[in-house]
Amino acid sequence: MVAAPASLESLCINSIRMLAVDAVNKSNSGHPGLPMGCAPMGYTLWDQFLSHNPKNPKWFNRDRFVLSAGHGCMLLYALLHLTGYESVKIEDIKQFRQWGAKTPGHPETFETPGVEVTAGPLGAGISNAVGLAIAEAHLAAKFNKSDSKIVDHFTYVIMGDGCNQEGVASEACSLAGHLKLGKLIALYDDNHITIDGRTDVSFTEDVLKRYESYGWHVQHVPNGNTDVNAIAKAIKAAKETTDKPSIIKITTTIGYGSPNKSDTAGVHGAPLGEEEADLTRQSLNWSYGPFEVPQEAYDHFRKAIDKGAQLENDWNKKLEIYKEKYPQESKEFERALRGELPENWDKDLPTYTSDDKGLATRKHSQICLGALGPNLPELIGGSADLTHSNYTDIKGETGSFQPETPEKRYLHFGVREHAMAAILNGIAYHDSGLIPYGGTFLVFADYMRGSMRLSALSELGVIYVLTHDSIGVGEDGPTHQPIETIPSLRAMPNMLVFRPGDGNETSGAYKLAIINRNRPSSLCLSRQGMPNQANSSIEKVALGGYILEDCSGTPELIFIGTGSELNLCVEAAKELTKKGKKVRVVSMPCVELFEEQSDSYKEEVLPSNVRKRLVVEAAETFGWHKYIGLDGDSVTMNSFGASAPGGTCMEKFGFTVENVLAKANNLIG
Amino acid sequence: MVAAPASLESLCINSIRMLAVDAVNKSNSGHPGLPMGCAPMGYTLWDQFLSHNPKNPKWFNRDRFVLSAGHGCMLLYALLHLTGYESVKIEDIKQFRQWGAKTPGHPETFETPGVEVTAGPLGAGISNAVGLAIAEAHLAAKFNKSDSKIVDHFTYVIMGDGCNQEGVASEACSLAGHLKLGKLIALYDDNHITIDGRTDVSFTEDVLKRYESYGWHVQHVPNGNTDVNAIAKAIKAAKETTDKPSIIKITTTIGYGSPNKSDTAGVHGAPLGEEEADLTRQSLNWSYGPFEVPQEAYDHFRKAIDKGAQLENDWNKKLEIYKEKYPQESKEFERALRGELPENWDKDLPTYTSDDKGLATRKHSQICLGALGPNLPELIGGSADLTHSNYTDIKGETGSFQPETPEKRYLHFGVREHAMAAILNGIAYHDSGLIPYGGTFLVFADYMRGSMRLSALSELGVIYVLTHDSIGVGEDGPTHQPIETIPSLRAMPNMLVFRPGDGNETSGAYKLAIINRNRPSSLCLSRQGMPNQANSSIEKVALGGYILEDCSGTPELIFIGTGSELNLCVEAAKELTKKGKKVRVVSMPCVELFEEQSDSYKEEVLPSNVRKRLVVEAAETFGWHKYIGLDGDSVTMNSFGASAPGGTCMEKFGFTVENVLAKANNLIG
Repeated sequence: MVAAPASLESLCINSIRMLAVDAVNKSNSGHPGLPMGCAPMGYTLWDQFLSHNPKNPKWFNRDRFVLSAGHGCMLLYALLHLTGYESVKIEDIKQFRQWGAKTPGHPETFETPGVEVTAGPLGAGISNAVGLAIAEAHLAAKFNKSDSKIVDHFTYVIMGDGCNQEGVASEACSLAGHLKLGKLIALYDDNHITIDGRTDVSFTEDVLKRYESYGWHVQHVPNGNTDVNAIAKAIKAAKETTDKPSIIKITTTIGYGSPNKSDTAGVHGAPLGEEEADLTRQSLNWSYGPFEVPQEAYDHFRKAIDKGAQLENDWNKKLEIYKEKYPQESKEFERALRGELPENWDKDLPTYTSDDKGLATRKHSQICLGALGPNLPELIGGSADLTHSNYTDIKGETGSFQPETPEKRYLHFGVREHAMAAILNGIAYHDSGLIPYGGTFLVFADYMRGSMRLSALSELGVIYVLTHDSIGVGEDGPTHQPIETIPSLRAMPNMLVFRPGDGNETSGAYKLAIINRNRPSSLCLSRQGMPNQANSSIEKVALGGYILEDCSGTPELIFIGTGSELNLCVEAAKELTKKGKKVRVVSMPCVELFEEQSDSYKEEVLPSNVRKRLVVEAAETFGWHKYIGLDGDSVTMNSFGASAPGGTCMEKFGFTVENVLAKANNLIG
Repeated sequence: MVAAPASLESLCINSIRMLAVDAVNKSNSGHPGLPMGCAPMGYTLWDQFLSHNPKNPKWFNRDRFVLSAGHGCMLLYALLHLTGYESVKIEDIKQFRQWGAKTPGHPETFETPGVEVTAGPLGAGISNAVGLAIAEAHLAAKFNKSDSKIVDHFTYVIMGDGCNQEGVASEACSLAGHLKLGKLIALYDDNHITIDGRTDVSFTEDVLKRYESYGWHVQHVPNGNTDVNAIAKAIKAAKETTDKPSIIKITTTIGYGSPNKSDTAGVHGAPLGEEEADLTRQSLNWSYGPFEVPQEAYDHFRKAIDKGAQLENDWNKKLEIYKEKYPQESKEFERALRGELPENWDKDLPTYTSDDKGLATRKHSQICLGALGPNLPELIGGSADLTHSNYTDIKGETGSFQPETPEKRYLHFGVREHAMAAILNGIAYHDSGLIPYGGTFLVFADYMRGSMRLSALSELGVIYVLTHDSIGVGEDGPTHQPIETIPSLRAMPNMLVFRPGDGNETSGAYKLAIINRNRPSSLCLSRQGMPNQANSSIEKVALGGYILEDCSGTPELIFIGTGSELNLCVEAAKELTKKGKKVRVVSMPCVELFEEQSDSYKEEVLPSNVRKRLVVEAAETFGWHKYIGLDGDSVTMNSFGASAPGGTCMEKFGFTVENVLAKANNLIG
């Protein structure tokens, strides 16, 4: 089955294959099948096409390479190692999947320089790649001049059958076709095997025809196991097709080289074992020991180091000329690349007094976007087809990112929430200072949670604008009314969840979301209006929770409120104060930031000896006992909502001053 | 623009349109555009094709009609009302979107008899429809005889551009094509408008070509506004195509009839207003007042009542003959339709003693499925391409539901988690006794959360088999290790979340999941082994939480443990007992069921005066303060995990007897 001429090419390709076999065998876990099957396309792409600099994985103008089939990470680690990245030494490969290693079981950007996106959850990588390509096209349109293309790179993807079955990839690729992202090139590893066996048990669609329907350029390489020339020819043709994204279906054999396990599900996600590894060595005519790479292969692969240095050098020269010719633009370009916010970017964020007319926080959000837009050119985003509900438009700007207008920063994602989140992640992964945001109804965070989790895990400062944040949604009913959504987001590590209670808090939430470039923010915003508070401020939001209204001395009762229910606390507190009760109102726009405050501050806001505490929030109680403990109470939700006008819903579910007072009186008797 | 002959046909079609206009105007919220545009296709389908009985919405053999574009619910309510369903009287339409009405803002099965699926979250309905068609095909193959087809109906869908952009629909429709579900017929309302404006801002793919790539039969009706004959002809051709699902693209004008708002996003989701409603009346030559339906239209539509009675009657006769000829099968068929579990269905659920070898709970789950399979023929399910990791197969059974073998009950969903959940919902919506289950990794619950929420909201007894439930996953790393997933599911109303701590608890979890036909269950199962406990039992799981190990007298400290961490509590308790401490271990396999117990039982298990409580669970702390309050502590997770062997992860993140003891000693000092 396997021809094995000891050509340099086969030495290089088999180096990838055998590093994968050895690493997976040593760690006794992992996925050897994909790297063995994709070694030829990986080699061809990295050897002949990929523009990168192993000694500077962060060189801006590099081509982006995304291994969307992240389980095959040994392909990527092998390529990084072989081409000379410091991040993946042979020792790291020997430590594959071990505690503290640079070679985790799926590629993670925060662990391994050279890894462009965190992959593993299938469909995410290709969808991120659409975001990378959008970022490139946008920056190219914004900064390039007819005589100087300082932004000019491709985004390459290797994806598998799994990625092609995931809906998020369908959404993202449909949009990529619409946007005519000509510098996005996907290599589809068509190996006919998934974990359940042959793809014909569940996946028999005509994949290329589907991509054609999206407007992609499609090609097929029937022999991806050995026909390097055909792969190279196809990539070349894809590069030359500048008005469409490209997909190249490359038919391969999973686990190529393994006499007994290739072309079976058995080689997908389990070690070959020593015996089969030996047989694979024989079959590939491979005379090297475990983790041994022939010097010829190293020598060839590591030409990438000099080549990469040259590429970056050439680009640096180009940038120097650009700087001279276009000092203004280059200043802006370099600032963006440093990830530095412009001076006074937040100067127009509005503040309010209690005399100002109360608005819905989604409306305050729109005002914030309008205030930030002109001062923060790196802000880029849009909505999953709810622009006029989410109010995600930037005041004063018209037009959107379209094939002919990539310089525009408004994105119409279509009714594609999951792709939106993945694309926002991709824009953030591009690491070029862009600040991505995207809007949908809060309840549809569920549709994109897979990618929101990756924002959090990969430390991406994506801003989620999530409007219609409670039963206050009203008539659209329980399918559209979030109940558990806010707690479910609060449960997520590294996710900032803001639920501002008025205009100042909305401005504060935006300020913090912008500043936090290494963690995502979910802004939970109301459909309905609420008054501006007297004692709120942008600055106080940074504390996460703070005393909004207070009594003298130790309070008998502490209200904790958020968002549209904050004012119920304020009103109830007024009533109780009138009756001589000592009560405090704590506004808690961001639980996570409150948790990060000093113990003494937290004790000051919520003294541990004041146990009568009442939370008011039109969301599931779940999670609030951290503050109300066993002795407090809550006015919260414990069921799904109902279809009725928002005010009626609020009233029927107990979000009234009367009910808050009743519960408060119960507590302090 | 609008011709308006006062034909019976136009009277009927305009009755639908104007009911939608009037209801949305009266409620001052809602979506008139779709019903106005889809009235002709809705009329044609219901008038000429839909087999249903308005006086018995639950008649088993009815065609299923799914309005996937659920925001257009006035189309459905109008059709239900006009054809004579008791559930939607004219008063109900006047109460559109009001508190307690049978006409909520999106169709909800639990509110309105005649509504087949809860729709609104786009893409869900068409994906449910795939489940409905699977259920029909399965039951037909199982019960029909060559001389008697007692299961024989179509599943019709109206879907819009939004549904066609959602990834879940792509996943489900790809699978539907693979499975050759010939009795699934989708009418695609191609109206070129979404909320952000014309579809050409984001959605320019060739939809029919895409469906062709999935293996569907495709047709186009260019004039869906007036060409009822063409619509009828296309539906007829679709019915005759028995080896493929069908999609008919029907080009329409959104808000057809409204002179100033039709063909704009303005008519999608906002009332026309009185003035435009009047102009629409003029334009449609409609001389009737608000909520007025011409008697001729009523007379014609309500022929459905007699026709429906006849259809059901004919079927009943057929069933009588079937009963005589096939008494055994008919007994089983009728039992299933009553939703009655077979006698002794649970008799083979295994029990264990502490001497029995400990296993992973995913392995116990496989044993349960094997024990239930033969006794519970209505169990139907599979995995999203993780059969051999989730262990979702039924021991002793081979083969799967494929085009040629629909009688098989194992489903290969492919790498399509979201579609899996939506299809499981569809099977449950079929309401024919089938008990659907589906497996994936727990962390990928995030991919299908949109549909899991609909399981909970619509009270569907879907069973989610979610394996690899913690950092115990090990080498696959943080992308595959759930941290916040369990709390995020616990936050969802009406969702039972089980995390069994040994074999008995796994059997108990299955028993409860099967019994609970009106709420979904999430079974969170370990990858790794754990010992069987001495005092666990199937019965105790029904209490949600119970005393597993106890001391005499009032405990100084209560451990609360779940799943693979339960045994850490037991071991730590042993150590403390040796040292003369009084400690109790509470096992909490299902928080939701514990919450439903009497106050006295809860007080017995967790006495309010014992405040030293320690939770041990390898998941986010979020939510546990309900039991540990302000004075307890936890050994839980507060960050994402890491790639390393599972045992190493457990140790590094503090899940050791030593660390549990240290925290316990801290508390009771």
